[in-house]
Amino acid sequence: MQKALETPYYAVIFTSQRTDGDQGYGEAADNVVSIVSKFEGFLGAESVRDSNGLGITISYWESMAHIDKWRQNAVHSSAKSMGRETWYSSYRIRICEVKYENSFQHPEHQ
Amino acid sequence: MQKALETPYYAVIFTSQRTDGDQGYGEAADNVVSIVSKFEGFLGAESVRDSNGLGITISYWESMAHIDKWRQNAVHSSAKSMGRETWYSSYRIRICEVKYENSFQHPEHQ
Repeated sequence: MQKALETPYYAVIFTSQRTDGDQGYGEAADNVVSIVSKFEGFLGAESVRDSNGLGITISYWESMAHIDKWRQNAVHSSAKSMGRETWYSSYRIRICEVKYENSFQHPEHQ
Repeated sequence: MQKALETPYYAVIFTSQRTDGDQGYGEAADNVVSIVSKFEGFLGAESVRDSNGLGITISYWESMAHIDKWRQNAVHSSAKSMGRETWYSSYRIRICEVKYENSFQHPEHQ
C-alpha cells in the first residue's frame, strides 16, 4: 500500500473497462509505468483490475501542473490513442484534490 | 460505469487489502451497499477487487457534509469496527474534491 502523503495533493482516478485480449496492452502498460514512475511530481499509484476487465487505477501527484505536464507526454499520448482505439470499451477520468487521508494497519498483518 | 456528474463533487477513495476467507464480509457489504445507496447526498460508487484481495472502492458524494453524516451512520460504524478487527489487514481512506471529469465510450462497444 501507498505510503502516507501530506495533503493537499492530487489524484487522477481512471476507471476503465478493457476489451478482450491483450492486443499489446501489457507491454505498453509496463512502459508507461516505468516512465511515469520517474516523472516529476509523481507520488505513486494504485491499480486493481478484476477478472471481468473492470479496472480502477489512481495516480497521485504533487500538483495540477504536474498532471498537465504528464498529459502532454508523448508516450502517454500514444498510449491514450491506443486506449481509445483498441484497449478500452469505455473509461472515465476524474481529477481530484486530496484533502485528507487516513490509514489502518492490522497489528497481526504487518 | 458511473453516469456523468457535475463538478465539483466529492469522492472517498478506500484502498484495502482483505484478509483470507469471507468471515461475514459478503453479507455485511451487501447490507452497507443497500443502505448507502439510499443515503442523502450519495451519488454512486465504483468498486473493484482482484484475486489477491486488493481492492479499490470509490464512493461519490454531493458534499463533505454528506460524507461526515455517512461516517456517523450506525451500520457504517459497525462495519468499520468489523473491518478493523477481521476483514482488512490494511486500508487507506482519502477524501477528495473532484474538480474535473471526462469520459470515453467506444462506438463499437456501446
